[in-house]
Amino acid sequence: MGLKEQLDYLFDPRSVAVIGASNQLGKWGFFILARLLESKSGKEIYAINKKDTEVLGLKAYKTVVDVPGPVDLVVVTVPFQGIAEVMHDCVRKGVKVAIIITSGLAETGVKGARIEQEMVEIARRGGMRVVGPNCLGHIDTYSNVRTVGFLPGVKRGSVALISQSGNSSQSVTNYAGQMGLGFSKFVSSGNEADLHFEDYLEYLAQDDKTKVILGYIEGFREGRRFFELAKEITRKKPIVIMKAGRTDAGARAAQSHTASLAGSDVVLDAAFKQAGVIRVEEISELVDVAVPLLGQPLPRGRRVGVLALGGGMAVMTADAVRREGLEMPAFSAATMDKLNSIMSHRWSRGNPVDPGGDNVSYEALWPMLEDENIDAIIITGGVGMISGFRNWVILPSSIKSQLAEARKRGEDAEIGNLEKTIELMKKHQKPILFTTHVSGAARSGRIHNKLRSSHLSFYDIPERAARALKRLVEYSEYLGIAPQRTMKTDIPHAVRGELVEP
Amino acid sequence: MGLKEQLDYLFDPRSVAVIGASNQLGKWGFFILARLLESKSGKEIYAINKKDTEVLGLKAYKTVVDVPGPVDLVVVTVPFQGIAEVMHDCVRKGVKVAIIITSGLAETGVKGARIEQEMVEIARRGGMRVVGPNCLGHIDTYSNVRTVGFLPGVKRGSVALISQSGNSSQSVTNYAGQMGLGFSKFVSSGNEADLHFEDYLEYLAQDDKTKVILGYIEGFREGRRFFELAKEITRKKPIVIMKAGRTDAGARAAQSHTASLAGSDVVLDAAFKQAGVIRVEEISELVDVAVPLLGQPLPRGRRVGVLALGGGMAVMTADAVRREGLEMPAFSAATMDKLNSIMSHRWSRGNPVDPGGDNVSYEALWPMLEDENIDAIIITGGVGMISGFRNWVILPSSIKSQLAEARKRGEDAEIGNLEKTIELMKKHQKPILFTTHVSGAARSGRIHNKLRSSHLSFYDIPERAARALKRLVEYSEYLGIAPQRTMKTDIPHAVRGELVEP
Repeated sequence: MGLKEQLDYLFDPRSVAVIGASNQLGKWGFFILARLLESKSGKEIYAINKKDTEVLGLKAYKTVVDVPGPVDLVVVTVPFQGIAEVMHDCVRKGVKVAIIITSGLAETGVKGARIEQEMVEIARRGGMRVVGPNCLGHIDTYSNVRTVGFLPGVKRGSVALISQSGNSSQSVTNYAGQMGLGFSKFVSSGNEADLHFEDYLEYLAQDDKTKVILGYIEGFREGRRFFELAKEITRKKPIVIMKAGRTDAGARAAQSHTASLAGSDVVLDAAFKQAGVIRVEEISELVDVAVPLLGQPLPRGRRVGVLALGGGMAVMTADAVRREGLEMPAFSAATMDKLNSIMSHRWSRGNPVDPGGDNVSYEALWPMLEDENIDAIIITGGVGMISGFRNWVILPSSIKSQLAEARKRGEDAEIGNLEKTIELMKKHQKPILFTTHVSGAARSGRIHNKLRSSHLSFYDIPERAARALKRLVEYSEYLGIAPQRTMKTDIPHAVRGELVEP
Repeated sequence: MGLKEQLDYLFDPRSVAVIGASNQLGKWGFFILARLLESKSGKEIYAINKKDTEVLGLKAYKTVVDVPGPVDLVVVTVPFQGIAEVMHDCVRKGVKVAIIITSGLAETGVKGARIEQEMVEIARRGGMRVVGPNCLGHIDTYSNVRTVGFLPGVKRGSVALISQSGNSSQSVTNYAGQMGLGFSKFVSSGNEADLHFEDYLEYLAQDDKTKVILGYIEGFREGRRFFELAKEITRKKPIVIMKAGRTDAGARAAQSHTASLAGSDVVLDAAFKQAGVIRVEEISELVDVAVPLLGQPLPRGRRVGVLALGGGMAVMTADAVRREGLEMPAFSAATMDKLNSIMSHRWSRGNPVDPGGDNVSYEALWPMLEDENIDAIIITGGVGMISGFRNWVILPSSIKSQLAEARKRGEDAEIGNLEKTIELMKKHQKPILFTTHVSGAARSGRIHNKLRSSHLSFYDIPERAARALKRLVEYSEYLGIAPQRTMKTDIPHAVRGELVEP
């Protein structure tokens, strides 16, 4: 059985058994079984418990061998002392994949490593693959098999996440929820005693449901294989990696966490670059970069046009763009003419464009999108502002209905403007990143849905938008879409990442 | 009349008139009058409109001179061509302070600067002070006089904000709302034709309702005065500044925005340091730093203890701490003994503390707070997790009631643990910063309220917590509370900020 077939059993099994299923609130075996039941995947779900005859309303079996039908996938939550016995049972039953949630193994030292090794040997002899141990489970949003007891907010989408840390992935999926990003598959790879990060990567490269692969890594089991795979994959499918353990203290913590050795960060950084992997520095950046990668064109260069509905945002966005080593060129004469013709003398007369209080937004954006000096756009402020009108509540009722109508008209106009914008974005192959501080109002409703469905990403502060754009530019340069350039003004990763213990 | 008395009229006037009050949705004069009416300050509110006899249900007067009672404060939204006439009227009426929302003045060039100058001269001759022009208005959450047409979410609190940009302040107040931070006063200072940033600063230094002063600055009108004031104020009241326009493109945009000249950023940076001003690099940092400043002790040094409920967060937090130039020392032998006694062999056995899946959190925190090697704590993950239980919905009803009870018990226990934690925090004078990825659940309810009311700040990613802590450490070193040290591992601001145009 090849890797693809094996991992198909993981993500789309006919049946799943929870070994250590529990009625006791707070136990892993409680949350995981509850989650499997709640997900309504239509798969056969079995509870295995040595003592109880019923768990969460399901008949419980003493061992997996007692289950009447076939069991493709098991999730194991029993303490590490009982792991070997469970593995023997699974092999006897013909289980294809075992997810081992149990911790206390290789990450704790020599004794734990021995138990872990024994566990893998039993599995290998029996032709069974192992996820984990010391992991959180997995999610497939298409088969709807979800073995993670947490992460309730994970929606269906086109991004896959492989994570060597369970609770870091929780950060990613929570923030992804806020940003409207959905997932195809998620796997918490834990100690990677058998299945490695590289196996999941190889599998996801072939997965039609996955357009972008995100990874949280502390250390590589098969570094050479990773970079060989990545080099091939990134030609077609972006890989975005958060590699933690960059500093002395971080690397020590990683060793204790997933028993992984970090290696030299400077060497790794160079290897990521050579393989076209987009490396990010903060966990939230995985999401910040994934959203535009899903649906926006890659920039043809690093020349940014900024449209800021408000002068302060113009200044801060210009700062953010420059500090990421991107450029803020002057507009062409034709663009300047167009902008002069649609705005009053109050506009900023250059890049960044600040209308200076004029009620202008998309009309200024379009000439910028058409300017041959500009490769990408950042817009700050303004979008979805119309939604804020709803907050005026003490006005006479005549005004209230006027407000509702104005809002409807405003939204209609904005939807139309967005459609034209998306057309131009595609025509000129220039990504557009939004920054909006109107958090609540703008993040729901028709305009927001339009933004989301078009993969027009929006960020809470301009620094996040500029950072994400820089990552897109670098990837585009790697692919040869943008001309390769050295960033004069950027501080190289190596300098930022390599710290010396005092 | 001294500055204090003048600005008292701004923040707590007997009456306010909106000159240019409008029935037309979308006009400044519409939003501002609506806002004043909605705020229910109990002050007299007047509408001034040359044509309409009634605006938003109020009788409208043709000019401010026609108003029967005294008018302390006016908000002016008429186009710049009509400004001089309005100013003459105000002087005749004995108005104390005029907020000029109108833009198109000094920020647009020589012609606008002349009109602005004339406006100020009329005011000065008449003994009237001017806020703006080209500004957004102001807010006093105690008098409840609110002239800003937007920013609906500004709650009462102890932080003041002076901003040279209207829409940047919107970023601050929105994010502050999410972080549970309230404001005492807010003023959008605009072009500062008359009243300068420095005037507001001097006033707020004496304001009992204000514990921390935040500022968004693009350029100084009175640089020397600013730094002299700041040097005095920061001994008692922290000042946190976001100075934008650090890069070439940013400085050019600032010139166009508020007609301010940026000056050398490297020189400024040194001046900020000498005056004890906490300078931040992203607008959201203003809030990140303000929250702990309000109620937590300043750290006695830069040695950080990290407690991470989850290994990945431990690694990332250790990285974040080190990359900010803070230290991650080993614990004392006594602390190690205590931690060994409460956790299984799975714990990380060092700093950062990762319980390795053990159900331990506060019990591990307390010895860390008592450790003489540790000056501050960052906790990641876990807090408020108990709230997540509410999401299990398809279970048998017997389980459901069990869940509700467990949640109540869990919350009771956590409230008690938080109380003990706060006691230890005060006793040992060590700040505690939380990072939680449980965004929705943990940010409401009893536990969250407890966190907020105790000024225990929480951040969405560990990098934000580490960055905020670094600012606190630097301020503490400035005040001589922590021993002064050079950050070996930090990249100085000058290197990051000073960019060269390609």
